Parts: sequence; C-alpha cells; structure tokens
Amino acid sequence: MKKISLLGATGSIGIQTIDILLNNPESFQLVALSSGKNIEKTREIISQLNPELVSVQDEQDAVALAKEFPQIHFTFGAKGLVEVATHPDSTVLVNAVLGSVGLESTLAAIRMSKTIAIANKETLVTAGHLVMAEAKKYNAPILPVDSEHSALFQSMNGENPKQIERLILTASGGSFRDKTREELKNVTVKDALNHPNWSMGAKITIDSATMMNKGLEVIEANVLFDMPFDRIDVLLHKESIIHSLVEYHDTSVIAQLGTPDMRVPIQYALSYPDRLPLVEGTRLDLAKIGQLNFREVDFDRFRALKLAYDAGRAGGTMLTAMNAANEAAVGLFLQEKITFLQIEEIIEQIMNNHHNILAPDLETILHVDTETRKSVESMVK
Amino acid sequence: MKKISLLGATGSIGIQTIDILLNNPESFQLVALSSGKNIEKTREIISQLNPELVSVQDEQDAVALAKEFPQIHFTFGAKGLVEVATHPDSTVLVNAVLGSVGLESTLAAIRMSKTIAIANKETLVTAGHLVMAEAKKYNAPILPVDSEHSALFQSMNGENPKQIERLILTASGGSFRDKTREELKNVTVKDALNHPNWSMGAKITIDSATMMNKGLEVIEANVLFDMPFDRIDVLLHKESIIHSLVEYHDTSVIAQLGTPDMRVPIQYALSYPDRLPLVEGTRLDLAKIGQLNFREVDFDRFRALKLAYDAGRAGGTMLTAMNAANEAAVGLFLQEKITFLQIEEIIEQIMNNHHNILAPDLETILHVDTETRKSVESMVK
Repeated sequence: MKKISLLGATGSIGIQTIDILLNNPESFQLVALSSGKNIEKTREIISQLNPELVSVQDEQDAVALAKEFPQIHFTFGAKGLVEVATHPDSTVLVNAVLGSVGLESTLAAIRMSKTIAIANKETLVTAGHLVMAEAKKYNAPILPVDSEHSALFQSMNGENPKQIERLILTASGGSFRDKTREELKNVTVKDALNHPNWSMGAKITIDSATMMNKGLEVIEANVLFDMPFDRIDVLLHKESIIHSLVEYHDTSVIAQLGTPDMRVPIQYALSYPDRLPLVEGTRLDLAKIGQLNFREVDFDRFRALKLAYDAGRAGGTMLTAMNAANEAAVGLFLQEKITFLQIEEIIEQIMNNHHNILAPDLETILHVDTETRKSVESMVK
Repeated sequence: MKKISLLGATGSIGIQTIDILLNNPESFQLVALSSGKNIEKTREIISQLNPELVSVQDEQDAVALAKEFPQIHFTFGAKGLVEVATHPDSTVLVNAVLGSVGLESTLAAIRMSKTIAIANKETLVTAGHLVMAEAKKYNAPILPVDSEHSALFQSMNGENPKQIERLILTASGGSFRDKTREELKNVTVKDALNHPNWSMGAKITIDSATMMNKGLEVIEANVLFDMPFDRIDVLLHKESIIHSLVEYHDTSVIAQLGTPDMRVPIQYALSYPDRLPLVEGTRLDLAKIGQLNFREVDFDRFRALKLAYDAGRAGGTMLTAMNAANEAAVGLFLQEKITFLQIEEIIEQIMNNHHNILAPDLETILHVDTETRKSVESMVK
C-alpha cells in the first residue's frame, strides 16, 4: 500500500489520478490533497477517498469545509501546498499543479526523500538544476507523469543510460499542425482549445498548439535524463500512438506506444516499478489504426519550439524568463487580449531583453518569474 | 572478454556474427567454429580470428585444412558440431546452423551451463520443451538472435513477465505479401527469393514468403517466453521497422525498432545485458521513412501460418512433423520439384496424417523428423 499526497487534485491530471486511486484501493491510499477553487469537486473527492489533510486556495473555503468534514484537517494557500506535500504519512507526492507554484512544495517533499511523480513541468523547466541536485542529495526518485517522459522512462527500463544515443520526443503538432504561419494570424481561442488527440487543461492545450509544450518537454527531458539538447529530437507524429523513443548506441530504438490515455503514465508513476492492470483501458490495435505518420519539425513554422531549445541551451534564468513569459502570454491569449502569434513574439522579446544569470538560487528564480510576468503585462497595456 | 563457440559460421547469420567479432576484438574472442562445405570462407575466417577448434562437414576437408593450419585442431560431421558447442573455453554458444541438425549440440552446451544465443529456430520448434527444461535445470540463459524475438526480449528488459498481456510479432509478409492465392499458383523460386526487406538464406526466405517463418517464430515465442498461443499475435507491417511489440496489462506497449540489420540482434545477444556501438550501423530516421503501415493477418491467405498455430496448439511431435514437412517441402520447391502452394499442401497432409505423441523424448523427435522427411520425399516420387 503506497500512501499518496496529491497537489492539484481537481485539475485534469489530478482528476485522472483520483480515478486511478479509486480503481486501486488495495494499492494506494490518498492521505493529503490540495485543490484550488473547485470546492464541489474537492468535496466529492473527500467523500470518496477520505484523506487526512486537505488544502484549498482560499481561507474561507477551508473554514467552510472544516465544518462539513470535522474529522479532516483543512489548510489553505501556499503554505497549504507545502503541508500537503510534506505530510508525514505519504511516501509519494504527485505534483499535478500548473505553473511554477509547484516548486517550493516539491523541494520540501524531496528533502523528506519522498518519491516525486511530477506532472508539473514548470518546476523542472525553471528550477531543474535545483530539483535534481536536491533529489540526488536526498535520494528522492523523480518519476515522470507526462506521457512523453513516461514513454522515455519506460523505454529505458533495465538499460544502461550511458548507452543512450538520443531521445526522440514525438509531437502531435497540436490543434494547428496543418496550418501555415499565415493561417495562424487569425485563429481564435476556441480553435486553439480543440486538440486532436489529447483532452487536457486549457494552458497545456494552447502550449500544444504553439508547440511550446514540446519545448518545455525537451527541457524537462534534458533535466530528468541528463541529456544534452543536441541529443534530444522532436518528431512530428500526428496519431500520438508512439509516445516517445530512445535510441541506443547499437542503433536499436525502444519505444512506448498506446492509445492516448493519460491514466497510463500517471498509473505507471504510481505503480513503478510494477504495472497494474488499467481499469477500462483501451488496448492498442495497430491493424485498426492502419498507419502511423512521421514528419520532421520545421523550426520556422514552430517558432516557440526553437525558442525553448534556445532557452534550454542558454540555461540559467533564461529558462525562467522564457517559461514565465509563456505562462503570462498564454493567459493573455486565453483572455483574448493578444493574438495567437503574439504569444511567440512576447516570449522572443522577453528572451532578447533578458540578462541571463546562470545557476540561480530559488530566490532569484522566483524574482525573475515575478518580474517577467510584470513585463509581459506591461507590454499589452 | 567473452569467449565464443559458433555453429554455422559461413551461413548468413554466421557471417554477420563474424563481422561483429571482427569489429569488437576487445569484447569477444572466437574459440571454436563449425562450417559446412564452404571451405574458402572457412579458411578466411580462420585467418582472421585464429580459433582453437574448427569443425567442417566432411572428413577430407578437415584433413586438408589441418595441413594448412597445423596450430588448429580440426574435426568434422555431427560429432564435430558437439565438440565446437562444448569447447571448454567458450562461455557463449551462437547456434546459427539451419534445421534440426543444431539440436544435439545445443543440448550439450546447455548441460555445460553456457549462454546460448539461438538463431536456430528449428531447435526450439521441435524440441522446445526439452531445451527449456534443460536450460532451467543447468541455469543456461537462452538468448534470441532472431530480430523479432530479440525485439520482444529487448521490450521485456526490466519488466515483470507476469505483467505481460500479449506478444505481437510483426511480419513483412515476405516476397508475395501483395499477391492473392490465385496469383501464387505460378510463382517461381526466383520470385520467392526476392525478399523486400531482409537479406537472408534461401530456406528462410522461402519460409518468409509462405509465412511459415512467422509461424515458426510464433512457436519459438511460445517456447522462449512461456506465453500461450492465444496471447501471441502476428501483425503485418511491410516496412519491417517495428521488429515486434510487447503489450503489458496496463495497456502500455513497448516495442523495439530499427533499420533492418541482423547485426543488431546478433550483437545484442552477444553483448547482453550491455549494448555495444554498432560499427557502420544505420540510424533509424522515422521522418525520412514517413509512414509505417499495419494490417491484420488473413489466415486463409497465409495458410502456413495457420498450420503453425495449429501445430503449436497441438504440441508434441506434431511440431516436429510440421517442421520436418516444411523443411523437406521447401527443399523440393528450391529444386523446382513442386510448386509454391504445394509447400502448404504437403505440410497440411503430413499434419492430418500424423499421430501426435505428447512430451516426446529426443529419440522420438529425431525418429519423427526422419520419417516425416521420407514421407514427403515419397509424396513427389
């Protein structure tokens, strides 16, 4: 029985994590969770899984819930996230919050040598060097939840990492994969949210359309697997059936495949090194699919991906600036304050003006993060 | 430094094994080899790798070579194969002879607890239960050399075999994959030997065209991985890029891919659990390939595959009868004594008339093998 802390229980990954916990009561127990403002969903999860500790975003929600569920301890805000992450009973932290807010609690859990199942890519992108150094120091395994990194991780099972030649991340190309840059000029938020293969949250769906999502994944792969950027490739694969591939130095390539279902990588991170049967899983039927297609990535077409590689190679606070600019710009796009192509323009402008600081500490990272968001906001006023 | 015995050094697999040994002198040393009647090639290998022991098919060749290479011990015939396989210095036996002649020497090497890199599928097909029982008893690892089984083996690295749901063997479909049965009536030996993806020996290329090769592989997979036949599937995949796949009970599928190059699985069997860089290997470029295609197998079209499943499910000497009938019939086809479709007809007729003996001993297997070949010969007189 693994005892689980879950950050971000009511988001897309969080809800699917809950689904897995509900389906495997003999394997997992939820001891602590955090959610944001979706109190109805939080209430439902509490009734289903009866955790010991719950953190919500706002104090008044915590107070109200405490009256409803007197046997449960409630807390709130940023300190609440840390309390959930560091709950003394849990051995696994699932970090499924969005954005850089997950960083501090992840570091706190690492320092307690918990296993971290990480779906919060911004943590690895902005502070990968800090997270991995602490994980090494405190012997805390960092297990990927992203389907691509889970695929890479699964394709490295039992292998010697020194014999890896190249990581190949597949990319569906997102909602606009067949559009030219000219055609991207007038796309709407609604168009962008219509992802062909995966059902995900709004921010990640927009990141998928710009391919910044793949860029963040490239950086995440660099951090998680200690692989230089010139040995991480991106391959367009519109069916999203091969979730990623690892090439070894004997030219052999190992890949993980499956029907697109985020529950597979989430459950794998929880059950690792074992695999559990997936309840109501859809088996892969390649004969029925018939055909898998592959295409090289055009970095002029997918400029955000190029920017992510540039930031990755630069390292330091450039990563934070790039990530914060993207988060802020996507926010503005979702509010219909900027156009789709302005997302990339804003990121590029921020990166061009950023004075890079290498090997930054947490304080510097958080400072750059805040300042970058302010800069982006000021650009559209 | 691994010391190697090699049976079948001048065949297709043997020559590629020699290539790997030549390219990795710091990793491998050839101590003993067998060859057949290709004395020129045998002489060349002796000059390159200076083994201690060499066995050839005929006594007069052994005598002649002994005069040329006085420092080397020469032997011949069936006992020569056993001598090579059981050479006291070798820890690994590569069994790359064709047909059921490899069985006795493989068992002898297993009883010395050597690692067996097995390219001789007939050994596993006709006497799988004996081979695997002895391998277990003497703690001798059996490593596959066939590209499909190597792919399955690589896709099981670090995994729990109990969590495997299904093995999926890919099949190119051979030289006649796009022909109807009607069109198969008049195909020639030359047509059949023209395989689209792999360069192999004549017998295996014909087996590939009838898909009996895939049938033998299904049986081999059943034996090697202890997997029931209803959990071994065959998938048509004309590009031969995905070499096979393993589905786990969480719906996750792990696959091994690469450009078709038999040196990859051969070298992996030798270097396992490590991987060595492949000299002059061709890296996989999926973007360049562009598309992978998959199709269900039609058992009416590929009747030999159906017969192999039937023999596999029947077990016992039915496997030997089926395999011997196939070997004899393919021989007759290569001599242009029967038509292509008669290969299947002969196998089916032999199987229909065979009185199956379950769990046969070696003597029974060899008896059925001899009698079946005689029956096939008598059918065309």
